[in-house]
Amino acid sequence: MSSSSIGRMFVVTNFGESHGPAVGCVIDGCPPQMPLTEADIQKELDRRKPGTSRHVTQRKESDTVHILSGVYEGKTTGTPIALVIYNEDQRSKDYGAIAHQFRPAHADWGYWAKFGIRDPRGGGRSSARLTAPTVAAGAVAKKWLAENLGITVRACVTEIGNMPLVFDDWSHVNENPFFAPNNTQIEELENLLDATRKSGESLGARLRLEVLGVPAGLGNPVYQRLDANLAQALMGVNAVKGVEIGDGFAASRLTGTQNADAMTPEGFETNHAGGILGGISSGAAIVANVAIKPTPSVRLPLKSLDEEGNPVDVVTIGRHDPCVGLRAAPVLEAVAALTIMDAALVQRAQCGNFGLEYPA
Amino acid sequence: MSSSSIGRMFVVTNFGESHGPAVGCVIDGCPPQMPLTEADIQKELDRRKPGTSRHVTQRKESDTVHILSGVYEGKTTGTPIALVIYNEDQRSKDYGAIAHQFRPAHADWGYWAKFGIRDPRGGGRSSARLTAPTVAAGAVAKKWLAENLGITVRACVTEIGNMPLVFDDWSHVNENPFFAPNNTQIEELENLLDATRKSGESLGARLRLEVLGVPAGLGNPVYQRLDANLAQALMGVNAVKGVEIGDGFAASRLTGTQNADAMTPEGFETNHAGGILGGISSGAAIVANVAIKPTPSVRLPLKSLDEEGNPVDVVTIGRHDPCVGLRAAPVLEAVAALTIMDAALVQRAQCGNFGLEYPA
Amino acid sequence: MSSSSIGRMFVVTNFGESHGPAVGCVIDGCPPQMPLTEADIQKELDRRKPGTSRHVTQRKESDTVHILSGVYEGKTTGTPIALVIYNEDQRSKDYGAIAHQFRPAHADWGYWAKFGIRDPRGGGRSSARLTAPTVAAGAVAKKWLAENLGITVRACVTEIGNMPLVFDDWSHVNENPFFAPNNTQIEELENLLDATRKSGESLGARLRLEVLGVPAGLGNPVYQRLDANLAQALMGVNAVKGVEIGDGFAASRLTGTQNADAMTPEGFETNHAGGILGGISSGAAIVANVAIKPTPSVRLPLKSLDEEGNPVDVVTIGRHDPCVGLRAAPVLEAVAALTIMDAALVQRAQCGNFGLEYPA
Amino acid sequence: MSSSSIGRMFVVTNFGESHGPAVGCVIDGCPPQMPLTEADIQKELDRRKPGTSRHVTQRKESDTVHILSGVYEGKTTGTPIALVIYNEDQRSKDYGAIAHQFRPAHADWGYWAKFGIRDPRGGGRSSARLTAPTVAAGAVAKKWLAENLGITVRACVTEIGNMPLVFDDWSHVNENPFFAPNNTQIEELENLLDATRKSGESLGARLRLEVLGVPAGLGNPVYQRLDANLAQALMGVNAVKGVEIGDGFAASRLTGTQNADAMTPEGFETNHAGGILGGISSGAAIVANVAIKPTPSVRLPLKSLDEEGNPVDVVTIGRHDPCVGLRAAPVLEAVAALTIMDAALVQRAQCGNFGLEYPA
Repeated sequence: MSSSSIGRMFVVTNFGESHGPAVGCVIDGCPPQMPLTEADIQKELDRRKPGTSRHVTQRKESDTVHILSGVYEGKTTGTPIALVIYNEDQRSKDYGAIAHQFRPAHADWGYWAKFGIRDPRGGGRSSARLTAPTVAAGAVAKKWLAENLGITVRACVTEIGNMPLVFDDWSHVNENPFFAPNNTQIEELENLLDATRKSGESLGARLRLEVLGVPAGLGNPVYQRLDANLAQALMGVNAVKGVEIGDGFAASRLTGTQNADAMTPEGFETNHAGGILGGISSGAAIVANVAIKPTPSVRLPLKSLDEEGNPVDVVTIGRHDPCVGLRAAPVLEAVAALTIMDAALVQRAQCGNFGLEYPA
Repeated sequence: MSSSSIGRMFVVTNFGESHGPAVGCVIDGCPPQMPLTEADIQKELDRRKPGTSRHVTQRKESDTVHILSGVYEGKTTGTPIALVIYNEDQRSKDYGAIAHQFRPAHADWGYWAKFGIRDPRGGGRSSARLTAPTVAAGAVAKKWLAENLGITVRACVTEIGNMPLVFDDWSHVNENPFFAPNNTQIEELENLLDATRKSGESLGARLRLEVLGVPAGLGNPVYQRLDANLAQALMGVNAVKGVEIGDGFAASRLTGTQNADAMTPEGFETNHAGGILGGISSGAAIVANVAIKPTPSVRLPLKSLDEEGNPVDVVTIGRHDPCVGLRAAPVLEAVAALTIMDAALVQRAQCGNFGLEYPA
Repeated sequence: MSSSSIGRMFVVTNFGESHGPAVGCVIDGCPPQMPLTEADIQKELDRRKPGTSRHVTQRKESDTVHILSGVYEGKTTGTPIALVIYNEDQRSKDYGAIAHQFRPAHADWGYWAKFGIRDPRGGGRSSARLTAPTVAAGAVAKKWLAENLGITVRACVTEIGNMPLVFDDWSHVNENPFFAPNNTQIEELENLLDATRKSGESLGARLRLEVLGVPAGLGNPVYQRLDANLAQALMGVNAVKGVEIGDGFAASRLTGTQNADAMTPEGFETNHAGGILGGISSGAAIVANVAIKPTPSVRLPLKSLDEEGNPVDVVTIGRHDPCVGLRAAPVLEAVAALTIMDAALVQRAQCGNFGLEYPA
Repeated sequence: MSSSSIGRMFVVTNFGESHGPAVGCVIDGCPPQMPLTEADIQKELDRRKPGTSRHVTQRKESDTVHILSGVYEGKTTGTPIALVIYNEDQRSKDYGAIAHQFRPAHADWGYWAKFGIRDPRGGGRSSARLTAPTVAAGAVAKKWLAENLGITVRACVTEIGNMPLVFDDWSHVNENPFFAPNNTQIEELENLLDATRKSGESLGARLRLEVLGVPAGLGNPVYQRLDANLAQALMGVNAVKGVEIGDGFAASRLTGTQNADAMTPEGFETNHAGGILGGISSGAAIVANVAIKPTPSVRLPLKSLDEEGNPVDVVTIGRHDPCVGLRAAPVLEAVAALTIMDAALVQRAQCGNFGLEYPA
C-alpha cells in the first residue's frame, strides 16, 4: 500500500501538484465490462471545479479529465484506469512571496519538516486541487455502485461558519452554489460569503453525508471496520477536523435503551447508529457528519516563521476559497463511494456475495 | 493487508473470540534489540482488564499475556512478536438465550448478514475483549516510542453520560476507576454508575487523547494522512462513534484568523489544529476527542428479531460493563501509539529521519 | 502487508522460532462456513513432521496444531484463524557451540547483519521448522480449493543430489519417506541417504509441483501475476534456489512454434506453458519445478567467521536433515495452495467469478 | 496493494495498453531531494525502446517520458512521481484479423477468461510495451541506489535460442543490439536473427543479472524474503519462465560442503548462493539467471480457437520482436533495482540502517 493510495481491492493512487503539469490518479481493481466514458467522470468534476461562482476560488480550470487506460470501446477492461487532469491556470507568481514562509494552519511547515523540500506553488500537493482526482475516481465507484447495487451517495452543507442551514429537501442541494439543502437561505448565504471575502477572512462548514442502499454485511469486525475506513477516508479530505457516524458525539449522552435502534420486520425504527454496527453495515442508511475548518489562506496578516526560523507576518494574496467547505460535498461523496466500493469487493472476495438486504 | 491488521511497517494482526480458547495478536516490524518482557505488556493490560471495580464487567480474567515469539534473552529480535492471552472465564451459558436473536445496537445482525454464521458466546469477536490484544500491541509501541523518541500517550474520560468531568490534572487519571482527571467527582461518579447498573441501563462517555513529543513530519499529504490514520484507528475501537482532531467540530465555527495557530520561535501560540496540519504532524501535541456510545448490552427489553426474522424482546443477562467507555482510555492510548509508531517507521523508511523538533 | 505475511485476500502471517515456545500463524480472510477441524490440518502437518524416518531430523515433535480462533462448532466463521504448534523438543544446548559463529550457507550472518541480534537456538526463525505453520495454513486453503473448486495440489521429488528419480505414478509419492514417484528406487535411496548421513555431508533435491483443476482467469496482467506470485511463494520456501513454470529454462531453447500450446475444443494439445500465460492461468495444469540446495548444516568443518570477525572452523553438531528437500513436498504444495487460494478470492472480488473452465 | 503495483515502501503502479493513449506509472515513496530529470529516465528507456535495430520490432516509438508530478526544480519532493509515455505509433489495423481469436502462447485467452473483455490492439495490456513504465521506474530506483548506496545493476544475454554467448566482458553489453557480453559473436547473432525473422519463427533467450554493492541485511526471514521478492519481480516480466538465484538448479546437485560459501575476513570465497541466504542479502553480489520463452507472435499458422470456440489457424502479421529476450536486459535490471530499493527502505524503516558491508 502506497502512502498515496486508498482501498484494498478497488485501489486509487493519487498524484500531482497544484501548479505542476497535471493531477490525476490510477484506479486498479475496477470490475470489467462497466460502460464508462469521460463524460461520466466529468459531470462529477464539474460539481467540484473552481470558478463556478464568485464564492469560490477564481482559478480558471476546465478540469477536463482524460482516460489514459483501462477502457476499450467504452467499457472498463478490468485493467488500471489512469485518469489525468492537466493543470491549465498556473500562476506561480501569485505565491512567490510566501515560497519561503510557513503559512499558519497550512501544510507548509509539516511538508518542510517531513521532506526538507516543498513545492510552494499554490500549496503544491497540499492544495484542495488534489481532491479532483479523488472526485474522478469516486465517479467511477459511484457509477458501479448505482448500477450494480442500487447504492447512491449524497452530501449537503448543514452549517457555514456559525450559520446553521435549514434542511428542506435534498433536491435543492445541486441547485445553489452552497450545496445548501434549501432555497430560502441563499441570499443570506451570498451576503455572508460576500462579507467574508471582502473582509479577507474565511469560514468553516459542516456537512452531512448519506449513503443509501448499502446492504448489511460490508466491513470487518476489527481494525479494517467499515466505520474506521469511512472515518479514515473522510478525515483524509483536506481541512476535515471531525467525523461522526450516526449520532456521533450526541450518542455518548444517550442511554443504552435510547441509543438502541429497534429491529422490526419492516426495518430499523431509528438510525442512531448511522448504518454501521460492530464495524459492519446494518442495512440502514449510512450517515456521517463532518466538520471542515476555515480555509487557512486569509488576506489578513498572521504571525509565523520563515524557513530560517525568523518571525514574519504572512499575508496570503492570490486566489482561494473563502470557505473551502463549500466545495466539499462532491469530495465527501467520492471518498464515501470509494470506501463502500472497496468494502463491497472485499466482501465478495471472502463471502461470495454483497451481504443481505434489510428489511428483506 | 488483512482485514484484521493495522499498520504498514509496524503491523498488528488481531485474532480471537471472547469465549474461544484465546485472544491475541502478531506484531510484525518491531525494531530489534528493544528490551521487552511480559511485565512491560502486562502493566498496560492490567489497566484495561475486567473485574477491577464494581463499575466494570465482573468477568474474572487475569489477562495474562504470553510472548510466543520474537523475543530472545529479553530483547526483541526484529521477527514477529506473537502475544497470546488465554481466555479463562468462559461462561458460554450466559449467552445461550440470545444465541439466535440479534441484540439491538450490537454487531450480531451485521455478522450474520456478512458471514451467515457467528460465534454468539460473549459476543464472539465483537466483544470489547478483543481490545486486549490491541492494548498489548500498543504497550510495545508505547515503549519503543518513549525510549527512542520521548513520545508519551495519555487519555482520560471527559464526560460520562451527560455528566462533564472537571479537568484538574492528569495525575489523577490512573488513581480512580473512571480514568477521571480529578479526585473531586469520584463519589458522584460512583453513585452515577451504581444507579445505572441497578437500573439495567448503560451510559456513553467522551474521552480526550493526547500524544506528547511527536516530532513534526510524520504522516502523508494524501489518503494515508496522519489524521486520517488516527481517525481510522480511533473509530475502529469498539463503540466509538465520533472522532475529533484538535478543535474538531468547534473549528468549523471559527474564522480563518481565529483558527490559525501562530508560529513563533518558541513554538505554536495555540493548538487548534491538534498537532496535525495537512495530514502531517506539526510538532505540537496531538490532541483528539472521542465519543463512545452507551454499552449496547442492557438488562431492559429491546425490540428486535431472531435469525428467522420473527419479532422478539431481547434482554441481555450476563456480565457486561454499564459504561464501556470507562475502560476505553488504555485502548485509545494503544491505537494512538500504534498509529504514531507506524508513521515514525514509514517516515524513517522514506526520509531517513523522524522529522524535525519544533520548537527546535 | 507485513514482512511475514503472504497473500492479499487470504492472508497468512507466520510467527515463531525453532526453539521458542511455539510456531504458528494467523490466517485472515478465510471464507466462512467451511467445516474445519484440527484433524484436517494435522494430516498435512504429519506429512511434514520430523522424526518419521531415519532419513530426516530426529527431533521429536508431535507438531500438534491448536486452533485458537476463527472456528465455531466445527465451521470457519470468517474471522482470523490462529493456529499454534507448541515446540516440545527444545535442545538449545545442541547449538551452544555455534551461537556466536556464522554457519556458512546459513542465514546466521544475514540475520546478524540485518537485526544486530539473533536467536541462535536451532537456527531461530531461519529453521525449516517455520514451514510447519505454512503447511498448516496451506491445509486450510487446500481444503477450501478442493471442496469449492475441485482443485488439487501435489508434489513429488524428481531428483536427490545427482540421482534422478523415475516417474512411475503419483500414487507412490506418499508411500515412501522420499516423496518419490516410484517404488523401485526406494532401497537405492535409502542407501544414498544412509551414506550421506554417515559421511556428514548433505544433498539437494529437485521437486515437481502440480496444481490440477485451476480454472482459466486467475492472476493479473502486470506485477501481481500468477506466475510471479507462485515464484515468490516457491522461492520463499527455505533452501529453494530455482523455480521454473512449465518448461522453464528449457523453453528458452524452443522456437515459437515449438513452444506454442495449440488450443483445440478438447483443450490444449501440450502444456509447455505450465498452465500460466501472460500472468493468468490458462486452465491447463499448473506445473512448476523447484531446486532445493543441500542442507547447509553439515558435520564437516567449514571455514567461517565468528561475530567478532575472527576466522573459525564451524562444525554443526545436533539434529538436522541430510536432505531438507525430502520434506519439501508438503511445503511446496502448501504455498501453491495459498497462492491459488488468494488468486481465486481476488478474482471473485473483481470479476464476481472464478474464471472459466477450459475445455468447457 | 493493487494488482498492478509492486513494492511496499517504494511502490510502483503500472498502467496502460499497447495501443491506448499512453503507458505509464506512479512511483510512491521515493526519498525526497534526489536530483531527477526526464533525461535520467530517458537514457534507460532508450536502451529498451523498439526500432533501434532490424532485430527488434519496427514499431516507431520515441518512448519520450514526461514527469507529471513529484519533482520540483529538478529534485524529487517525496510525493508521487507520475511518469507518462504517450503511444505514438498505434496501428490498430495490424491486429484486426486476430481481434477475436486467441493466439497460442499469448495472454489472449487468459484475459478473455478473466475479464470477459480484452483490448486486442497490439496485445493490449499484455504487450511487452508495458515494460517501458517499469524501466522508467527502475531508472529512478537505480539512480537512488547508485548515489546513496553505491549499488549497480547490470544484465546481459547469455544464450539466444540454442546458441550460448561467450562471456568476455560486461563492457560489450551496451555496444551491440543483442546485449551480448562479447564482440566476437555479433555477426553470427545477426545471421541467426535474420534467419529467424525471415522464417517467421521466434527464439527464446537466457539472461544473467547482477546487482553489485548490496549490503548484507536486506530482506526478511519468512515470505517477504529478498530471494522471493526478486523471483516475483523477475518472473513477473513478460515471457520469463524460469528464475535462478546463484547456482540455482545446479545447486541441487552439489553437496553441502561444495555449496557452502566459505566466509573469510576478506569476504566470501565463492558465491554459490548468489548473494542471498535465508531470505536476506549476504553482501556478496546478487546473481540471478532468467529464462525467456520465444516470442509467441510468429508468422506461421498455429492451431487455436476463436471467441466462439471454433477452431482456427492463427497467423500473427504485424510488427513484433523475433526474440523478445533481446530487449529484456534493461527490464530485468529495472525490476531488480525496484526490488532492492524497496528492501533498502523497508530495512531502514525497521532497523534504522541499510545493513552491514561485508567484507568490512
